[in-house]
Amino acid sequence: MRFDIITLFPEFFTSPLGCGLMAKALAKQIASVHVTNPRDFTFDRHHKVDDESYGGGVGMVIKPEPIFAAVESLPHFDRSQVLLMSPQGEKIDRALFEELQNNCDRLVLICGHYEGIDERVMNIVDREISLGDFVLTCGEIPALTLINGITRLLPGTVGKVESLKADSFEDGLLDYPHYTRPPEFRGWRVPDVLMSGNHEKIAQWRHQQQLDRTQAKRPDLYTKWLENT
Amino acid sequence: MRFDIITLFPEFFTSPLGCGLMAKALAKQIASVHVTNPRDFTFDRHHKVDDESYGGGVGMVIKPEPIFAAVESLPHFDRSQVLLMSPQGEKIDRALFEELQNNCDRLVLICGHYEGIDERVMNIVDREISLGDFVLTCGEIPALTLINGITRLLPGTVGKVESLKADSFEDGLLDYPHYTRPPEFRGWRVPDVLMSGNHEKIAQWRHQQQLDRTQAKRPDLYTKWLENT
Repeated sequence: MRFDIITLFPEFFTSPLGCGLMAKALAKQIASVHVTNPRDFTFDRHHKVDDESYGGGVGMVIKPEPIFAAVESLPHFDRSQVLLMSPQGEKIDRALFEELQNNCDRLVLICGHYEGIDERVMNIVDREISLGDFVLTCGEIPALTLINGITRLLPGTVGKVESLKADSFEDGLLDYPHYTRPPEFRGWRVPDVLMSGNHEKIAQWRHQQQLDRTQAKRPDLYTKWLENT
Repeated sequence: MRFDIITLFPEFFTSPLGCGLMAKALAKQIASVHVTNPRDFTFDRHHKVDDESYGGGVGMVIKPEPIFAAVESLPHFDRSQVLLMSPQGEKIDRALFEELQNNCDRLVLICGHYEGIDERVMNIVDREISLGDFVLTCGEIPALTLINGITRLLPGTVGKVESLKADSFEDGLLDYPHYTRPPEFRGWRVPDVLMSGNHEKIAQWRHQQQLDRTQAKRPDLYTKWLENT
């Protein structure tokens, strides 16, 4: 999977993509990330990417030309989508990660800034994608979320495929609790069943924990799970 | 507002906090970010922060001692909360940003990694916070989202307070479309009303756009808005 990020702050991505599992996945060429700055497609003396809002109002609006020029400078891919990071878009979730991973070889991620982007940019956007019902100073954080979540599902990023299968949401339920050494810490003991060596009982306990937690914390997911079972 | 991040990858935050509006807000001391690495609170030769999961299963689990020690090393604040970044938690939204901003002077953000964190860590956690129904390789991205969204609402981060008032979600509706120069781009013209100079008509048009977009893209928000009006 290739990610092309259209961003006024290319340096934003340096350290998040340079550490942990993401850095390893990029080193193994499981995914690649390329950054294009719309400012490089401005030809006035001040490399102006934004201007005042027609109709008035505070805040600057990003001009359409540099965004179009940046997107049109990218190499062509048949299975490609252009996504605008916007609080007005479809919510990011596990299903979206899977859909994009299955259907695309390349994603173009346009990051907004300031008061917004000229609406005419929607003419090159396939979909608007939202991280949730809130506003951030920049679209770079939603873009980073998409890159991380999709790359995590690509073969080779997470050591063992079983890890992905045990994810929250993978089977429609939240994950069970995890424990490691020491067996007792400040008076809190690891549940006996986990140290019993009885694999059947352990599996039963974990499944029951998934059900209990999902019912308590996410009744909406629990109802959906019941309907599908 | 002070943010204390508990993270195994302190370097993750360098570039996202070093550019754009966030960098300016930190330079102006509107907020401060401190990073503590649980690995600095391990005393074996290999500085081991994780171990195998009791009961079996792939993936390593973060041990409780280094997390407790890292959190307990922080200075005391009266109005403080400890938040664990977890897909099982409360969803991040605009209301959560406002609540935390109003009620806290300091937030401790614990970032998970690997297969999970020893469940006993929940004894020092006030709340679990989730970015959405998906799993990422790390809790650093949800932490960054919280820091950005809360800092953005603090006085002085965004130039003009009016900018925040025009946000999507602020009045329960999505934002209206923005346009800037040129008046015509590739045959697409800026709507005439925005160039009319008639402020009343512009305000009416923008409000109608908000209603139409919210109804089309987010019928759930639209219904809630109708109920509250």
